Amino acid sequence: MSEAIRVLHYGLGPIGVRIAQLVAARHNLVSVGAVDIDPAKAGKDLGTVAELERTLGVLVQPDLSEPLKAQRPDVVLHATGSHLPTVSQQLLALTDAGLPVISTCEELSYPWFHDPDEARRIDESAKRSGIAILGTGINPGFMMDAIPVILSGVCPAVTSVRVRRVVDLSVRRVQLQQKVGVSLSPAEFAAKKEQGRLGHVGLPQSAAMIAAGLGWQLERVTETLEPLVAPYSLDSALGTVAAGRVQGLHQIAHGWVAGQERITLELEMALEALDAGDFVELEGPEPVSSIIRGVQGDVATAAIIVNAIPQVLAAAPGLRTMLDLPPLRSVGS
Amino acid sequence: MSEAIRVLHYGLGPIGVRIAQLVAARHNLVSVGAVDIDPAKAGKDLGTVAELERTLGVLVQPDLSEPLKAQRPDVVLHATGSHLPTVSQQLLALTDAGLPVISTCEELSYPWFHDPDEARRIDESAKRSGIAILGTGINPGFMMDAIPVILSGVCPAVTSVRVRRVVDLSVRRVQLQQKVGVSLSPAEFAAKKEQGRLGHVGLPQSAAMIAAGLGWQLERVTETLEPLVAPYSLDSALGTVAAGRVQGLHQIAHGWVAGQERITLELEMALEALDAGDFVELEGPEPVSSIIRGVQGDVATAAIIVNAIPQVLAAAPGLRTMLDLPPLRSVGS
Repeated sequence: MSEAIRVLHYGLGPIGVRIAQLVAARHNLVSVGAVDIDPAKAGKDLGTVAELERTLGVLVQPDLSEPLKAQRPDVVLHATGSHLPTVSQQLLALTDAGLPVISTCEELSYPWFHDPDEARRIDESAKRSGIAILGTGINPGFMMDAIPVILSGVCPAVTSVRVRRVVDLSVRRVQLQQKVGVSLSPAEFAAKKEQGRLGHVGLPQSAAMIAAGLGWQLERVTETLEPLVAPYSLDSALGTVAAGRVQGLHQIAHGWVAGQERITLELEMALEALDAGDFVELEGPEPVSSIIRGVQGDVATAAIIVNAIPQVLAAAPGLRTMLDLPPLRSVGS
Repeated sequence: MSEAIRVLHYGLGPIGVRIAQLVAARHNLVSVGAVDIDPAKAGKDLGTVAELERTLGVLVQPDLSEPLKAQRPDVVLHATGSHLPTVSQQLLALTDAGLPVISTCEELSYPWFHDPDEARRIDESAKRSGIAILGTGINPGFMMDAIPVILSGVCPAVTSVRVRRVVDLSVRRVQLQQKVGVSLSPAEFAAKKEQGRLGHVGLPQSAAMIAAGLGWQLERVTETLEPLVAPYSLDSALGTVAAGRVQGLHQIAHGWVAGQERITLELEMALEALDAGDFVELEGPEPVSSIIRGVQGDVATAAIIVNAIPQVLAAAPGLRTMLDLPPLRSVGS
């Protein structure tokens, strides 16, 4: 058997913890370092922070120190933030140091349309260092972008793409419910939305990835975000949500090509959402549709990050996207 | 705009004709040669044989002649047979000549388990010539093998795979109805089955591809094939099928790993099949399922063959499978 792949964890929030748990469960992977800026985590054993039943002999560090680099990690699993400007210095420090990176950063999944300068900077750093960096996850990274492009492979032509993702928040963690605005009044929702503090990050990146995959010249992406209001009182991790208060959100990205809306990505996240699943429709002379069920965001995002390791280690240097890599697989369990 | 990719067509049966039609519809592709052993086709213009509304100035040749190679094709789209031993000399002539190949040959989709010697011979020839060769199609190549592996990418672990493909033969061509045994008596079906002249080719290859993708040591694949008998008289392209005669088939491949059936691939092709579609179930701690609809075998197989061109031209030399390539896409229409 080949030697285990050495993993450095960067970011130990809810997703980072799940990633660490999955790495601990895989025989072909070993955690050799961990970084988190939270003072409550620094100095603790990764096994404790990740709620494992054993310690790992890996102490969480407050930043990417030289001793950490000396651990010779083969790959960094990065899960600290959704916005590329917020995390790009972290990513560049890793790529400059010659460390391959797989990041949950939503805006890294396809930054070439919305953040072309950041994308180029990261791409050039990775190429200089001879390593690959990938942004991925369930959404963006798989359900609302890679899957429609993959399905297009069996189509003679595609004229438009419509994806609808329905997430039942009742079975999801409290942080996600908060991010979505559960239990706010519609006025509070509107105010937070105005401040850019609400909603899912990544739909525009998914639209840009689809356009790139299908060879479409994307002109612009517009986005709408509206609250879904509880018709009657509902239970939530944040307490009872009274009728008339926010139970979820409905977010839509519209991708425009040659003056026409050819990409529509619709995300509905709500308490007690019925019919949760991922629905793709490709229009064209031979329409194709798919329904995927059972993909729970956090577990699946941790899985896709970990499953990406072999493909990222084998990839050509540079900033890669899910459209550049052979299929990720669940292996090594 | 870059120069059009030069395509050589090898095999102009029902699928080859559809491939030629799609190539003619793509602005970034141009047909520069064609081969078919059928004397009725040799010497005719490809446009005529492919039922296009125009001639292409490309005469169908009875074999792969030197003048054809002199046309400097960039890629060969090969559609002559399902069984690897039958077509491997054709494939080796192409790879030895340094021509990249995309083939509909079902047994080429993943030959490493069932035909390892042929696989190695083709792989070595392709590597010597510095080109890639791929066997693909809808089934095998996509629905019952690549898709379940792709979906596994979001799973922390997969313990078993079950795929069911239901094809409505009523909307398919007469040759396929014949291949399936439509209108035979159950006794005639049994006799033809005994001679190996009935049924779909490729389920064992799909099972082997899934096992390879998920890192499972496949021990063996067993296969069953039974007729589906018409409960009442049915219309077909072969005439009315009386009650009690064959209306389709039910074929199952079982893939065994460590003494357990972990892969089950079930194919149902029948007249007036209800609920046509492709159903995947991945079992494990986080089960995932998918339903894909609308993928009509012939059209979609032509599409996937043509859509594979960019990825095969960019691939590392050797015998490649769908698990080695980045997602195929519908582009260039």
